[in-house]
Amino acid sequence: MGATADPATAIWQDIQRIRAEAPLVHNITNYVVMNTTADALLAVGASPVMAHAVEEVEEMVGLARALVVNIGTLDAGWIESMIRAGREARRRGVPIVLDPVGSGATSLRTATVDRLITESPPTIIRGNASEIRSLVYDERATRGVDSTHGSEEAVAAARALAARCGCVVSVSGATDVIVSGDATIRIRNGHPWMPRVTGMGCTATAITGAFAAVNPSPPRAAAHAMALGGIAGEMAAERSKGPGTFQAAFIDALFLIEEGDIEQRLRMEEA
Amino acid sequence: MGATADPATAIWQDIQRIRAEAPLVHNITNYVVMNTTADALLAVGASPVMAHAVEEVEEMVGLARALVVNIGTLDAGWIESMIRAGREARRRGVPIVLDPVGSGATSLRTATVDRLITESPPTIIRGNASEIRSLVYDERATRGVDSTHGSEEAVAAARALAARCGCVVSVSGATDVIVSGDATIRIRNGHPWMPRVTGMGCTATAITGAFAAVNPSPPRAAAHAMALGGIAGEMAAERSKGPGTFQAAFIDALFLIEEGDIEQRLRMEEA
Amino acid sequence: MGATADPATAIWQDIQRIRAEAPLVHNITNYVVMNTTADALLAVGASPVMAHAVEEVEEMVGLARALVVNIGTLDAGWIESMIRAGREARRRGVPIVLDPVGSGATSLRTATVDRLITESPPTIIRGNASEIRSLVYDERATRGVDSTHGSEEAVAAARALAARCGCVVSVSGATDVIVSGDATIRIRNGHPWMPRVTGMGCTATAITGAFAAVNPSPPRAAAHAMALGGIAGEMAAERSKGPGTFQAAFIDALFLIEEGDIEQRLRMEEA
Repeated sequence: MGATADPATAIWQDIQRIRAEAPLVHNITNYVVMNTTADALLAVGASPVMAHAVEEVEEMVGLARALVVNIGTLDAGWIESMIRAGREARRRGVPIVLDPVGSGATSLRTATVDRLITESPPTIIRGNASEIRSLVYDERATRGVDSTHGSEEAVAAARALAARCGCVVSVSGATDVIVSGDATIRIRNGHPWMPRVTGMGCTATAITGAFAAVNPSPPRAAAHAMALGGIAGEMAAERSKGPGTFQAAFIDALFLIEEGDIEQRLRMEEA
Repeated sequence: MGATADPATAIWQDIQRIRAEAPLVHNITNYVVMNTTADALLAVGASPVMAHAVEEVEEMVGLARALVVNIGTLDAGWIESMIRAGREARRRGVPIVLDPVGSGATSLRTATVDRLITESPPTIIRGNASEIRSLVYDERATRGVDSTHGSEEAVAAARALAARCGCVVSVSGATDVIVSGDATIRIRNGHPWMPRVTGMGCTATAITGAFAAVNPSPPRAAAHAMALGGIAGEMAAERSKGPGTFQAAFIDALFLIEEGDIEQRLRMEEA
Repeated sequence: MGATADPATAIWQDIQRIRAEAPLVHNITNYVVMNTTADALLAVGASPVMAHAVEEVEEMVGLARALVVNIGTLDAGWIESMIRAGREARRRGVPIVLDPVGSGATSLRTATVDRLITESPPTIIRGNASEIRSLVYDERATRGVDSTHGSEEAVAAARALAARCGCVVSVSGATDVIVSGDATIRIRNGHPWMPRVTGMGCTATAITGAFAAVNPSPPRAAAHAMALGGIAGEMAAERSKGPGTFQAAFIDALFLIEEGDIEQRLRMEEA
């Protein structure tokens, strides 16, 4: 993956590019997090657009520098739009970030992710451990959108999924793990409140889209996004009293973060 | 309804159970409040999932410990999903909480609530006075989603509706009233800003789902949820300057509330 | 347009009417901003309702004092509802405020706005410079929902669009410009963070609906709404640290604003 700068510097360079270029990130995402992820993308410096109509998704992908597909509130019409947008993104070389929200909870979700992986293979899949496992093992999740498995099992599942789809797999958790080919990047930033805030995972996915728009290395883009999210989460927790005030402080942190914050806080290691 | 503990202790026991068990609450709710109600459920300690596709609602209900149905932004496809999810919840004994948002404002809304009550009878109906009245009296509301009638009229309507549908009716207002069979519980917690904050009623409904997931007594679950919402509202108002900062402080309060807060503030009476 | 009071007094009179009368504003708007715009309408004192089902939009318009149509997340079913609601609003004399979000980015959006203008002509169109230009000039926007053109070009486009549709055109930007017939009102309130906060434009549109509900002069309603938004933005920026905390402080400011705030801050000029 050829790092030419130390990790904190490389993350900072990406952030500066996002702020300077304001890449358009096209989101086909769930209703719950549309506002939150748009806020996060704007705070990072990107230009979010949400568009799901089958009549316009291909045209919108043509304007975008990344496509984010999130299956959190699926239905049949949206699936068709996700497929079409994904195919057009593949055709144009626009990176695709897929969030398999709730995969494993229902067969509609698992089957939709399988179809998306086959028909418009994503550049990066970003999910929690349960979701990633559901795409590898023939098992049924017993909970909705929560993560319920340990870190090392998740890494094994991520490795299998990355091999199967030829993509980067980014697994969020107490330790975030990014798997790509033989490389594994671990990030230990973040705060315990984050799983109690709606859409933090979906926000990580959206931010991954912004990084993928400016960084040609998908594993780096995925890792930098998770690092930024974790560090902004730490900064936000210091300025808030609970998960409600955390959310606004998190958006502030994405907007206000400076190179020194990354240098001081980054806990990333690569193996 | 057999209380075995004083009300504050009983509420606190439910909260501890929600926090310990993180029950999955399946929401088929309106677009406006999806984020807010997910935030509130997470802050209380529950696990929210939003899923509306007709292809997956029955499967999702099978994972859930409560189903929340809210008609705030209806259309034909969603109605079908609400009916199917409700039938499956009845079949499995999963409690159903129904919020008839805007019932009385349009015939689509009133007719949909009538159909839901008939085809998948809810365990608890939670609405404001206008909405509850519209389900009992043959009159047309003249406003959208506001409450426009006095408390005692609301109680009479709630009693009639509870008798008709064999369910608990929870009416929010300056005084919240929970009606079940012959029992009536009144709660005088809350803050005047709450009607000026989007989705506070829908949030009360969602939280009612979390309590119904852990408390086998529907009137207790309904009353405990309204008490928690009102008390958290009082706590939030003390930490905010207006309805914008109130919303984040309210989520914080749901997360931070302790037994002493309930003991000191609870204004619940039963007749 | 016959001003009978100085501008700050006239704005304050409208706000007092909104607070006293709580006009119902019917929104058919995009998923991203439903919560935000409902919050803003409640904070100003109006009563928001979101309703999009083709089966109920005409009935809901019959209860409303303004209709807000926003195409931010279109699809075929919603377009039909927008057309029907718009026709009913015209028939009843209910003012229509149209936000052409992303017009110029895709042909679906541009064509939909053209159709809305023809089949249910709006009272006020409120957009950014790119969107307004796309409705006048035969050019393709190269970005999603951002504004990319200068102020004077925007004024010329607004004038052409106002002439074509016989309506008021309100263009947001560093300077907001409201064009109606020969009159032009410019407002220089606001804060640089506002374009980095999701839905501030859509919120301006929603608030325009509230003012149109109480002020019979569409250009005055449009100008007063933009002035309130800009001033509330300035007040919010003084109480926040970044775009996350800004959003809550903005809602607070809409709720807390007093006549003196408008007198001290208003920067409106008419030519």
